[in-house]
Order: sequence, then C-alpha cells, then structure tokens
Amino acid sequence: MRYCSQCGAGVTLRVPEGDNMPRHICVECGIIHYQNPKVVVGCLPEWEDRLLLCKRAIEPRYGLWTLPAGFMENGETVQQGAARETLEEAEARVEVGALYALFNLPHINQVYMLFRARLLAPEFGPGSESLETELMRESEIPWEEIAFPVIHESLKLYFRDRAAGHFPLRAGTIRRLEGPERRYAFDLEN
Amino acid sequence: MRYCSQCGAGVTLRVPEGDNMPRHICVECGIIHYQNPKVVVGCLPEWEDRLLLCKRAIEPRYGLWTLPAGFMENGETVQQGAARETLEEAEARVEVGALYALFNLPHINQVYMLFRARLLAPEFGPGSESLETELMRESEIPWEEIAFPVIHESLKLYFRDRAAGHFPLRAGTIRRLEGPERRYAFDLEN
Repeated sequence: MRYCSQCGAGVTLRVPEGDNMPRHICVECGIIHYQNPKVVVGCLPEWEDRLLLCKRAIEPRYGLWTLPAGFMENGETVQQGAARETLEEAEARVEVGALYALFNLPHINQVYMLFRARLLAPEFGPGSESLETELMRESEIPWEEIAFPVIHESLKLYFRDRAAGHFPLRAGTIRRLEGPERRYAFDLEN
Repeated sequence: MRYCSQCGAGVTLRVPEGDNMPRHICVECGIIHYQNPKVVVGCLPEWEDRLLLCKRAIEPRYGLWTLPAGFMENGETVQQGAARETLEEAEARVEVGALYALFNLPHINQVYMLFRARLLAPEFGPGSESLETELMRESEIPWEEIAFPVIHESLKLYFRDRAAGHFPLRAGTIRRLEGPERRYAFDLEN
C-alpha cells in the first residue's frame, strides 16, 4: 500500500497511538488502513462414499486437484460462500453441513474453513476455474497431485475420520518452513 | 474506496471479466481491489463456574459488557488472536480450547469465532479498552447491558450448554432487520 484509498495522498507505516502494530496511515487525512486475514471457505462435497474434487484451470497450481473453495465475499455467510464456490468451481448444488476443518495459514494471512456437504444430485461439471471435476473414492484420490497442503491434510483427516465413523471439528495450523523448497509443518490442535 | 492504493489513480466500480461481482478497479494500473469480510476472534474465559467479561471503555457500545474479542491480525492464528484479545482487553492469560461459537454477521461483513478458554490464574484487570473486568456466574450476567447481540446469544447458548454438560460447536447467523430500531434476527444452524 502506497496511497490512501480515501483521499489519494501518500501513506506512512507507523504504530498508531494506543496500538501496538505498524499500520498504513494517510499523511493527509490520517485514516488508518488496517489489513486483516482473509477467509477461504469450501466444501467436502459427498455423494455416497465419494468426494467431489476439481482439477484447477487457473494459477497457482494449475492442473492439480483441489476441493471447491475460495475467498469469502462481503454480504454472505461462511456456509453460503462454501456453497457458492462449489457451484462456481464444480457446478454442483450442495446442502452445507457442519464445519469440519478450521486451518490457519498464518504465512499467507488466510483462515480455511471447510464444511461437510451433501450433493443434492450426482450432477456436476467443470466451472470456468476447473479443467475437470470428478467424484472420487479414497483409493482414487491422486495424493501426489493435490494442489495445496491444507487440502491434502483435510482429505487425509476426512477419510481417517470417516473410517472411524465420526467427524469431530479438526483445527490446525500449517506453516511454511524457511528455505527455497516448498516445505510445510502441520500442527493439529484438535 | 476512491483511489488506487498501489498507484494513486482513481478507481471505478465494475465487474471484472470472468467475475460476477462489482469490484473497485484502478483506471490506470488495472489492479482489482477486493474487499472481504473480517474475522473477529475472542474467548469465553472460564474460571470455575464463572466467565470473565469486560465493560467497554470505547465506542461503539461504551459502558456495556462484552467478551474479550477483536479483529484477527495478519500473521497470527485464530487461537493466538483470541488469546491476544483476552490479554489486551482483560489482562488475562488463557489456554485457548475448542471453537465454541461461529457466527455470521453478513450485514457488517464479519465472522465471529469465539473459543472456550481456561484462565491460567484468577488474575485479570481492565486493559486500555475496558473500564472494568469481572468474573461472573450465570446469575450475575447483566443481560440488559450486553454490548452486542452476538455476545448475548453466545452467552445464552454457553450457559444452556453448560447446564446440559456438553459444548457442541454452535453455528449461526445474526441479521439486522430493516427499520430505524436496532432489531436482529438470529438463526442457529447447529
């Protein structure tokens, strides 16, 4: 951020009075521009013993598989956002159920919230951001071609919990480790 | 938003190609400025059969009672944010437990996440945003002086669930009703 979105003047980065973190503050109008994490909402769309996955048609991670998920929008609920993303990316209508996975990704200022969801019918197809969509059993998941660590972990936990017959809320944190390779640490809190 | 925070030029409000919602787009550099909901994180801080509440020293709702909660910051987890707000507003250290309440407030683009938490010691006091802090039993809660509907609903659910001896995740949506008075509808999803 270099300019004030309210008045167009420059901004400076300093700690406001009574605060303890540096913020972008307008040098003219004095407004404080807070920046906060974004919520990513999505579904684990179930049909019998299968889940609906999408092959990404966009960067990042073009061509890899994921669950339907994306940034929550203003004016909607987390459940509406999860259903909207499933409709947009997989052209599938779902009944959204309980929150299943709550993951922090503090290195990219995101909070993931994935909901269990039931397909209303076995009807789906690739939306504009997907190359393919497919209902997959656990044995059919392409584990080496999953787009994001948070999705990989969520799928692993989901199939483990389904084998055990119950789905507690899973909460955890994924941190990117230092270094040039993409390596992550995963802490499950409950 | 009237100016581009990246280049200082003006912005226009239109639907980008491939999108379906109007966004603020810079007329010079073309960057799309997305606006998304904010996460409010907080605690239900427990000590024996009491909860720690704070009397607000700031607007809105100056002088009314609330739970320690505030906007999640970049770089932290939801649990860290909930603990930080409890330290800032009530000068209390907590061990953060399970997510208890997940509430949508779509009319103000907020998602509330309140966690059960255990005070590490019965030590607390008013931070700079609080006038008073107090451990309260259910019978001591000033129900007519609670700052926000989401806190009122969360406290009601919490004490009901504690009486029943179990704490499922409570998820719901609070909507402000049309009209000049402050009136709200509350839907509990689970």
